[in-house]
Amino acid sequence: MNFNTALYTDLYQLAMGQAYYLKGKHRTQATFDYFYRKAPFEGGFVLFCGLEDALEWLENVSFSEEDLQYLSDQGFDKGFVEYLAGFKFTGTVKSVAEGDVVFPFAPILTVTGPVVECQIAETFLLNCLNFQSLIATKASRIRYIAGEDKILAEFGLRRAQGYAGLQASRAAFVGGFDATSNVLAGKTFRVPITGTMAHAYIQSYDDELTAFRDFAETHPDNCVLLVDTYNTLKSGIPNAITVAKEMEKTGKKLIGIRLDSGDLAYLSKAARKMLDDAGLSYVKIAASNQLDEHVIRSLREQRAAIDIFGVGTNLVVGHENAALDGVYKLCSFEDKPRIKISENLKKMNFPGEKQVYRYFNDDGQFVADAITFETLEAPGSMAHPFEPHKRMPLRPASARPMLKAVMKDGKRLFPERSVRDIAMAAGENLRQLPDEHKRFDFPHVYKVGLSREMEQLRDRLKEEKLKESES
Amino acid sequence: MNFNTALYTDLYQLAMGQAYYLKGKHRTQATFDYFYRKAPFEGGFVLFCGLEDALEWLENVSFSEEDLQYLSDQGFDKGFVEYLAGFKFTGTVKSVAEGDVVFPFAPILTVTGPVVECQIAETFLLNCLNFQSLIATKASRIRYIAGEDKILAEFGLRRAQGYAGLQASRAAFVGGFDATSNVLAGKTFRVPITGTMAHAYIQSYDDELTAFRDFAETHPDNCVLLVDTYNTLKSGIPNAITVAKEMEKTGKKLIGIRLDSGDLAYLSKAARKMLDDAGLSYVKIAASNQLDEHVIRSLREQRAAIDIFGVGTNLVVGHENAALDGVYKLCSFEDKPRIKISENLKKMNFPGEKQVYRYFNDDGQFVADAITFETLEAPGSMAHPFEPHKRMPLRPASARPMLKAVMKDGKRLFPERSVRDIAMAAGENLRQLPDEHKRFDFPHVYKVGLSREMEQLRDRLKEEKLKESES
Repeated sequence: MNFNTALYTDLYQLAMGQAYYLKGKHRTQATFDYFYRKAPFEGGFVLFCGLEDALEWLENVSFSEEDLQYLSDQGFDKGFVEYLAGFKFTGTVKSVAEGDVVFPFAPILTVTGPVVECQIAETFLLNCLNFQSLIATKASRIRYIAGEDKILAEFGLRRAQGYAGLQASRAAFVGGFDATSNVLAGKTFRVPITGTMAHAYIQSYDDELTAFRDFAETHPDNCVLLVDTYNTLKSGIPNAITVAKEMEKTGKKLIGIRLDSGDLAYLSKAARKMLDDAGLSYVKIAASNQLDEHVIRSLREQRAAIDIFGVGTNLVVGHENAALDGVYKLCSFEDKPRIKISENLKKMNFPGEKQVYRYFNDDGQFVADAITFETLEAPGSMAHPFEPHKRMPLRPASARPMLKAVMKDGKRLFPERSVRDIAMAAGENLRQLPDEHKRFDFPHVYKVGLSREMEQLRDRLKEEKLKESES
Repeated sequence: MNFNTALYTDLYQLAMGQAYYLKGKHRTQATFDYFYRKAPFEGGFVLFCGLEDALEWLENVSFSEEDLQYLSDQGFDKGFVEYLAGFKFTGTVKSVAEGDVVFPFAPILTVTGPVVECQIAETFLLNCLNFQSLIATKASRIRYIAGEDKILAEFGLRRAQGYAGLQASRAAFVGGFDATSNVLAGKTFRVPITGTMAHAYIQSYDDELTAFRDFAETHPDNCVLLVDTYNTLKSGIPNAITVAKEMEKTGKKLIGIRLDSGDLAYLSKAARKMLDDAGLSYVKIAASNQLDEHVIRSLREQRAAIDIFGVGTNLVVGHENAALDGVYKLCSFEDKPRIKISENLKKMNFPGEKQVYRYFNDDGQFVADAITFETLEAPGSMAHPFEPHKRMPLRPASARPMLKAVMKDGKRLFPERSVRDIAMAAGENLRQLPDEHKRFDFPHVYKVGLSREMEQLRDRLKEEKLKESES
């Protein structure tokens, strides 16, 4: 399946493209901001993910002959289809880094270029960035609650949303997972893969002990035994202990056992004791079965003896949200700042080409983000975006600009970053985010505000538009 | 991105494969059943979708040289990797038809073949069938509540889970949608595409009326105007009426207006009246903005004047579930029936190679499904699968077998069906499903049961396994 076609977009992008083209405005410069309004999972942040895929798509996207024929058949204007034959993305992209922690309403990525190019790119950018950021954020929550000492394995491919399984595995790794069961993801992104056996393997034998023995013999260096096919405490663990002892005689060690049903807190503690009593304290305990950050929190509270968490469905589909509400809004056209009016202030966007400054405290922790124009320095104070009476002083000397040019004239400015590098950077960024923004219940709201100049322009444009639409 | 590689699987499939290979059992015949346990959306059924993709994958799957090198690098046994070099799927697949309505616990698809082939196929089959069936089911619920007279458009690509956007559009069409905004899906699956303009187009103009005029001029035959950028009732609809009247003078007709925010019930009724008063009763009203089957039900109750529903996020991610719990369980190995024991009867599976018979009443409506062995005729009665005292008489003369061979020796037995044909068949099948199983609140449970022979074997194997694991 070739997703590098510009047809992987919404029809209205092309319909608007035709309108611009026929009016001679298709080359008019526009700027769009990508941002989100509400953090998923009732949390306080998003871990930005998917930029590498987005840049690769932008650098390679085109319409094939077959695509153009299809558009002609759909009734598109002949001249417009000819224009699309030479289509490529020639714009500029500024973005926070992949693996950065980002907050509601602050631009994460901006696209500047001929309006038709910006519009055709919109759908793929939203599709790619919304999903991967959602999953990376979910993964980071699971890592946060599991702790740095646990091994986290992503097992979601069978319940992932179709082809999204590949991107989900990548995003889970960026968000802090150690390995995936998805072999194609392992090869594509050079991340560790993991997995040993299913119940079917045990069932294919007349008895569990022989199944375990054969598996240990054929996987002497990476043997994890699934112990819940018949009866975890009476059959599975005793048989695993027998095999572990037999492995010791050949100089090998059983890596672990896996629990996949029942009460994981109770069973893991019982299993730990049985293994320890047998002198097998090195054998790790893995657990899986409908895990998410809330179940893992509960397991930790109960002091479950689990070393490895296998997380599937809830991670790779981003349950409960399943979608991030990221949007892509026009903020400049023909060098004029633009906004959309709404009775709901939160549904408006901020005008003009922007920079976001992040402020740090003396411990290097995030304090606040201020949105201003890209031509301005870091402001010394900011206003709440929707409650203008709330103002906050800021220390410009501690500020760093978040948006950096990553693509110019349609060409990437930096070489591709490895998924491993992005994951390491993400871990570092998450450490700089204070815990009160990471907690699950009513996280403290991270402050994002507007510079005085941004606030003033937004209010002036709003007044003008309201007057026009009511006149 | 090439998803036709056998690497798009879980590592444990290959780990088990190596164990079977080294023990000389990789060619042993096995049968697996695909089924689900709980209908999504608190509903009563699933609309089966994704079979064509599954068969295409099975017919073409292989390991490339690069894939094999990767597996060698991961430490797989040399002999096993050599075996994989010649890997293809050579098994038999029986399945219900794509577009069939299916119920919990009844096998939907069965795979018989050399055990390693069946295992490697598991992950893709689950990934593909679970997701597309989830979305087709969601779409069918939306069609059910919207009614046959409404136009349903799928607008989800920007919030779809990455590459899954393509499969989501296909499944939405199978489930009863009329069109998609996803241009690549339109081309790939030959389904209608739809879409006109975003707010950004209006904002790029200094005034809304000029934006509308230019769009109508450049899309004289398919113009739908988005009317909520500034003020729906005071600006958007009056401007749309002006343009519609201007179009009439050139012999053209405005197709519709689109509402994308605010109270859709109130605004649609106000819009209808304004359009009708202007002599524009032919102009249709489209609505979008976080729609799903529940919002559409409420809009219908309020007699909203909406002709076209544009449904995005909630459809294409299958909210609230985001995943179907379909599983793939070993039921036969080396010609011996197999089960997995569980303290929870519902987590057990049924043994042996099966057929599912569906019984009809005199009006051609579905009555019940009975699970039996594939060598047996339609039974004259069945037992509840988990409450054996509940029995039900059946009329064998009204029964039809559901599972039919669709692939033999790794080759498809029938030519590919078009998405349009599948959607038509799905519509017909849904009409045969009584309304009490389609309602949203506490749907009546459709009866799925076991023939006496199936019940007896399941109980006998369970007793045997329990005795073994406790001895």
